[in-house]
Amino acid sequence: MGAPPAIAPGEVWLVGAGPGDADLLTLKAARLIGRCDVLFYDALVGPDILDLAPPHARRIHVGKRSGRHSRDQNEINALLLEAALNGRRVVRLKGGDPSIFGRSAEEMDWLRAHGVRVQVCPGVTAASAAAASGGLSLTLRGMARQLTFFTAHARAGEHLSLDWAGLAAAEATLAIYMGRAAAPDIARNLMAHGLAPDTPVMIAVNVSLANERIIHGRLDALAFLTAAISDDDPTLVLIGEAVRPPDSLAAAPRVEATISPQTLLLQRL
Amino acid sequence: MGAPPAIAPGEVWLVGAGPGDADLLTLKAARLIGRCDVLFYDALVGPDILDLAPPHARRIHVGKRSGRHSRDQNEINALLLEAALNGRRVVRLKGGDPSIFGRSAEEMDWLRAHGVRVQVCPGVTAASAAAASGGLSLTLRGMARQLTFFTAHARAGEHLSLDWAGLAAAEATLAIYMGRAAAPDIARNLMAHGLAPDTPVMIAVNVSLANERIIHGRLDALAFLTAAISDDDPTLVLIGEAVRPPDSLAAAPRVEATISPQTLLLQRL
Repeated sequence: MGAPPAIAPGEVWLVGAGPGDADLLTLKAARLIGRCDVLFYDALVGPDILDLAPPHARRIHVGKRSGRHSRDQNEINALLLEAALNGRRVVRLKGGDPSIFGRSAEEMDWLRAHGVRVQVCPGVTAASAAAASGGLSLTLRGMARQLTFFTAHARAGEHLSLDWAGLAAAEATLAIYMGRAAAPDIARNLMAHGLAPDTPVMIAVNVSLANERIIHGRLDALAFLTAAISDDDPTLVLIGEAVRPPDSLAAAPRVEATISPQTLLLQRL
Repeated sequence: MGAPPAIAPGEVWLVGAGPGDADLLTLKAARLIGRCDVLFYDALVGPDILDLAPPHARRIHVGKRSGRHSRDQNEINALLLEAALNGRRVVRLKGGDPSIFGRSAEEMDWLRAHGVRVQVCPGVTAASAAAASGGLSLTLRGMARQLTFFTAHARAGEHLSLDWAGLAAAEATLAIYMGRAAAPDIARNLMAHGLAPDTPVMIAVNVSLANERIIHGRLDALAFLTAAISDDDPTLVLIGEAVRPPDSLAAAPRVEATISPQTLLLQRL
């Protein structure tokens, strides 16, 4: 196991909180949280995880949610630096893995520029948790040899600038973080660049939590499938042959529904 | 935390063992391992992790290593099925995350086709652990909005068939699993398709373990940088602006060396 990790006074650990379920924290993350003086956390980190901090630890919410930034990055940076310079043992919890769409670089660069030592504890990223809940693999030999993660925020009037041709052409599984709002644009662009309309998609909402939903469908129904999902529910969109639902009756039990465009259209009649 | 996971007799759990350090197991994985009757494990799963299984549990090594397949997939499938049909609580440990280059689909499909219930516990994938050890983020706002994982086995006389143009063109971080042997081909192909020779690369060897090495350099030196790494040491290659080494003196401490082609040439004179 190596030496158990300790936090030195004045040091900051960026710690991956995993997809949501406290049981999916790493042993290392749980131990670091249990030894901090100050715990900064995002919106998606739940009470089960916060309860692992010692009673004396300050818990500071610095969460950002789609469309509503409760604190801007400069303010978060200033709070982290202040805690470190005051000699606190600081844990900065990030949903999922800090290195994947966690905006970690901004915080690390800032703290290091001020002489603060920063270390990172990795976490389980949402795509891995979604695959586990769906009972499938994100890669398949021969068919899905590549796995591409991207993030997509569609702001009013703005176009997503992504290499759609490259994304559509590769025999890849696509994992789109924070992709709910942009889902209609994503589907349209991928199909316009040649990805088949019947390409399987899987949508994971609140993955690994008690209110998790796993929805299977086709690419040409993605806009319908995501339309009713709330902005407040973290949503991961997976696209590709690898996420075709397991077809055996003995498949993993948490698959909620497989919806075809026809079903949806019937429901809307 | 939800209900603690249990393994029913005759059920198989595919469990992510994480990158190597037992401390990077999830709490859930550690608990599942502690409750199994039979533990199937790959070559990269170390004794600290195996020790978490109960004393009565059978530990069965089914590891594959580059170039040497100790057991083929059919044999592994047969062993898993036999254990499940005998009513054992089965844990199948996979290095990293089972859904990312873990060949999980073959085993899940086979077991389900025989009526065996299969569940998956996700794990920390090697790229996340490498970023943590390097003290950097795999994604950067504006500069590295995409993260692509692929795997590359170069067999004698065979060419790697990958979409090099797409891989080189995207403003992406590339994470190449099991890419040591193919590293010269990867660098040559990416540069031939326009990726700059001075693109930062980071090589993580034995990531998260006591003998971990993190090597920084440039794309045009990748062949040199990987030449001395043993086939037996799991190696992840990261390419892109995001893996430029942190330049502060306060950076994470485990960065071993930054090597330029010039240094290497001098060492070879």
